[in-house]
Amino acid sequence: MTKLLRMEAAMFQKTRVFFSLSAAVSVIATMGHQAFAQDVPIVRDAEYYILEAQNAERWAEEDQVIDETLAAFKEANEGKPPNVFYILIDDIGFGDLGSETLNSIRGYKTPSINQFADEGMRLARMYTEPSCTPTRVAFMTGRHPVRNSMGNTQVELAGFGLADAEVTLAEVLSDAGYNTAHIGKWHMGDVRQSWPNFQGFDFAAFPIHQQGQLTIYNDDAANEEVSIGIGDNNYDDLFTLDRWLRTDSARLVTGVEGVRNKDVREVHMEPGERWTEAKYHEMNVRYQEQAKEQLRELAAQDAPFFLQYWPLYPLTGPRTTTEEYTTPNGGTYVEKMKLVDGWIGDLLSEMETLGIADNTIVVIMGDNGHFTKYSPQSGYTPMVFRGGKGSTTEGGVRVDAFVRWPNLIEAGSVVGDMFHVSDLFTTLARVAGATSGVPRDRIIDGIDQTSLLLNGESHGRRDYVFLYNIHKLEAVVKEQFKLAIPGGNIENAILADFYDLYRDPQERYPVSTEIGAWGSAKFVNMIQRHFQRKEKYPDSPPGIGVPYEGIINLRPETVAVVEEFFFMRQTPAR
Amino acid sequence: MTKLLRMEAAMFQKTRVFFSLSAAVSVIATMGHQAFAQDVPIVRDAEYYILEAQNAERWAEEDQVIDETLAAFKEANEGKPPNVFYILIDDIGFGDLGSETLNSIRGYKTPSINQFADEGMRLARMYTEPSCTPTRVAFMTGRHPVRNSMGNTQVELAGFGLADAEVTLAEVLSDAGYNTAHIGKWHMGDVRQSWPNFQGFDFAAFPIHQQGQLTIYNDDAANEEVSIGIGDNNYDDLFTLDRWLRTDSARLVTGVEGVRNKDVREVHMEPGERWTEAKYHEMNVRYQEQAKEQLRELAAQDAPFFLQYWPLYPLTGPRTTTEEYTTPNGGTYVEKMKLVDGWIGDLLSEMETLGIADNTIVVIMGDNGHFTKYSPQSGYTPMVFRGGKGSTTEGGVRVDAFVRWPNLIEAGSVVGDMFHVSDLFTTLARVAGATSGVPRDRIIDGIDQTSLLLNGESHGRRDYVFLYNIHKLEAVVKEQFKLAIPGGNIENAILADFYDLYRDPQERYPVSTEIGAWGSAKFVNMIQRHFQRKEKYPDSPPGIGVPYEGIINLRPETVAVVEEFFFMRQTPAR
Repeated sequence: MTKLLRMEAAMFQKTRVFFSLSAAVSVIATMGHQAFAQDVPIVRDAEYYILEAQNAERWAEEDQVIDETLAAFKEANEGKPPNVFYILIDDIGFGDLGSETLNSIRGYKTPSINQFADEGMRLARMYTEPSCTPTRVAFMTGRHPVRNSMGNTQVELAGFGLADAEVTLAEVLSDAGYNTAHIGKWHMGDVRQSWPNFQGFDFAAFPIHQQGQLTIYNDDAANEEVSIGIGDNNYDDLFTLDRWLRTDSARLVTGVEGVRNKDVREVHMEPGERWTEAKYHEMNVRYQEQAKEQLRELAAQDAPFFLQYWPLYPLTGPRTTTEEYTTPNGGTYVEKMKLVDGWIGDLLSEMETLGIADNTIVVIMGDNGHFTKYSPQSGYTPMVFRGGKGSTTEGGVRVDAFVRWPNLIEAGSVVGDMFHVSDLFTTLARVAGATSGVPRDRIIDGIDQTSLLLNGESHGRRDYVFLYNIHKLEAVVKEQFKLAIPGGNIENAILADFYDLYRDPQERYPVSTEIGAWGSAKFVNMIQRHFQRKEKYPDSPPGIGVPYEGIINLRPETVAVVEEFFFMRQTPAR
Repeated sequence: MTKLLRMEAAMFQKTRVFFSLSAAVSVIATMGHQAFAQDVPIVRDAEYYILEAQNAERWAEEDQVIDETLAAFKEANEGKPPNVFYILIDDIGFGDLGSETLNSIRGYKTPSINQFADEGMRLARMYTEPSCTPTRVAFMTGRHPVRNSMGNTQVELAGFGLADAEVTLAEVLSDAGYNTAHIGKWHMGDVRQSWPNFQGFDFAAFPIHQQGQLTIYNDDAANEEVSIGIGDNNYDDLFTLDRWLRTDSARLVTGVEGVRNKDVREVHMEPGERWTEAKYHEMNVRYQEQAKEQLRELAAQDAPFFLQYWPLYPLTGPRTTTEEYTTPNGGTYVEKMKLVDGWIGDLLSEMETLGIADNTIVVIMGDNGHFTKYSPQSGYTPMVFRGGKGSTTEGGVRVDAFVRWPNLIEAGSVVGDMFHVSDLFTTLARVAGATSGVPRDRIIDGIDQTSLLLNGESHGRRDYVFLYNIHKLEAVVKEQFKLAIPGGNIENAILADFYDLYRDPQERYPVSTEIGAWGSAKFVNMIQRHFQRKEKYPDSPPGIGVPYEGIINLRPETVAVVEEFFFMRQTPAR
């Protein structure tokens, strides 16, 4: 890392705000990752050691049987661990998928995913982070994103992203011999080191930013007043002095594609071309097709594969005029949810055709709670819990989640054990026989939940979760209790209310009314242990760099946006 | 009816408040019910005729096939229509039952009912009335309880109940040759004509009042401060002038039993005995045993049977000290829900043993939304919808409901069509070949939904429901839209908001913001039609009489309560 970048990183970490960044800096090359000896233990947060002290013996016994089970699978599977196929659906909280009865309440159906859920295990208590980027980072790295300063990113240029120093599941599995591919949403930064093909994926096709750019920062959305104050062609600029205020998605990079550790290329956009809702639809269709292509190509290889498909739909903007209405609900969101369900059904049946259904572990889940700001125009409505995307109430962080691994995971099972999205990192590494690739030099939050998957309910290994909103610790869950810290001011945690989530899933009736009885003190102790641990293993900066550097065919208008970005950085605002 | 009772009835209808009622009045004898010629049409509310005009042809075609199906069943079943077993669970709204995933959210399981739901049809859009009495009246009579002044009753003595002039499903099925029995909660009045064995049941075992008396109006509950201001032995009466203020459940009649048209007998209470939580538990166990006994006895007869079992649990008061904790939730309500689930499982497996599973149509459902006042001490929490018992938001009137009829109703099916509890009256009469017994001289709100049960989703015949709270029309549902009338002031309905229930099941974002576009006018027209229809078929009074007359073995303390009741009636308050 250059000295300048190192300084940037230090400043970022301190203030979470960018200052100057020279356009001249160069991005460092991808570092190789070492394998860690299996006998060096993974570094954990304090709370895990408390569980381990009480359960070590039972876990060791279970682990021995699990090792035998995994070895037997491998032997029967031509010496290979299972393929991994991870489908992460955007802004799907709890209740949208997997239940025809709940479908009915809102007037639509998701038969493909419902059937998939019946064929596998329903993880009824899956926690994510409260929005897209942090959940995806937690999955890829097995770490709460606060640890690598990836609690949030944005639509506009940012000049940062997932640091190269992070070790992703793609890297872990790749090092263990897997072929890897990523299709669809990524949303972990606009700098080269943060992109999937620089983070362990052999092939990646993805948009640089998120759907805000693609769905509502365009002319169609502005014309239909889905978005206001976006774009530069839908108002009279009589008084405009600063024409950079209004984002125009056509000037930002859209979808790119590339292979491992090589620069990427923007696809399907010509210089001067406008971005439209129709192009967004094409992009979605293309990712669906590419997911299917990858499935075929990867299945044809000798090595096991790790494929992830992160659709952009159901998130959408204005309705395309050619659309058919196929649900009683009729909302744009629900209609697209139904579309995605059909697409996923198509991929699952392709797996049957390819003969890889039985030796592939498939996870389908949402990435965070509902985007409640869309209620109720689109049918985008919270179910069961309170709050939605962006909040750390259960409505923001509880999602539908289903795992299928025929013959190993019991079909039709439901588990109420706690699970965090970061656990998938550690668990899938274990299942792939790649635990030695999990870093030993930093805290790993993800817990190995293989026992839960294979042995069923009550075999989970987690009874807590820390819920951060970007960089603020807003809530702490332990068993069925949840401390909600107003404003994330942890110095006031001793005064904070806590809730019984079984009796009060909507967090409306605090049970901590009598301070001094059994109140917040145990939670305060948890928080203290958590922050003490951070003193030894401090949070690290994000990857810093030049936005879009590493894209071969930048359009002139895009180059101009980068120049504006650096111009604004250099103004004497500080 | 005597002249005095007739005057009483007229006054009741006008003011909904009782005035004087002489202790000398005698109760009229049970009237016989006429059979109605099949070609005389059932009288409907206005809205139904609008649907009929548009769908008559399709419905007639369906009905012809249904008649053939029912005839074929009868022929294969020794010439008999199916038995009917109706299980109505108290204060169960939507989400508690039938889904292991939703179970998990709250930390318990209901495996028996979940399996039952899998074996039959889930009615995902079942509406009830907003509390116990009116829902039960709507089921028994096929009429909104506002029509017979049964929108509410109470724990204390009331001197009224379901009128003898009402025709119940038990009478309809009895006239068609069914043996009939009722076990458990009834809660439709304290006067003889209102009791199940005077309303068509050959045998009935039931408490006169509801669980308020049995669970919290007792010494155990008062001592544990579950209830405050109840009972007369748990405070210092230094300043007491009116010792009748505080209800003592030991002085009210508890459980009674009797046979058709004969006076009943209080069971398991001796003069001077106190009512306790342990006795409440015994009562629950007894009803469970009696339900099983009835199942055996009825199955042994030649005639088909109509059995209803309306458990008192899960509603409960203080925890009995001997109780085991069997769920992670641990709340009194949830523990009892699990107990009832096991009991119902026992009855269902008894049906298998008796060989009557295939020729019996079984309905299991809740009677109204959750009793949210109990949240969250008991784990009694609203799911998905807003509000609970006593409110006409969906949370008050949407319930879990499952129907099983092997070979005729598709196992594992889910229907999103609208259904109202009163529809069961008309539908079960049809299935039993007893439609000719449905009255033709009054409005029947219940719609024949046999086509929905046999043909599945989209074959429902209802697209509206009027939601009364006691005597006030508070909301009107049409398709997915719902008008909520503040305070039930229908003269302001044109200004009222309406909601899209698919997109906004919690009724938080009205879509009727632009009056004049398409607003409340169509709802106002519906309301006008509904009230015009009432001019021709006005609401009728309840059955009026002397409380407890018709109980053979009244205890002295109970006689004193009746005397106090009449004394208070005679005070010159008016």
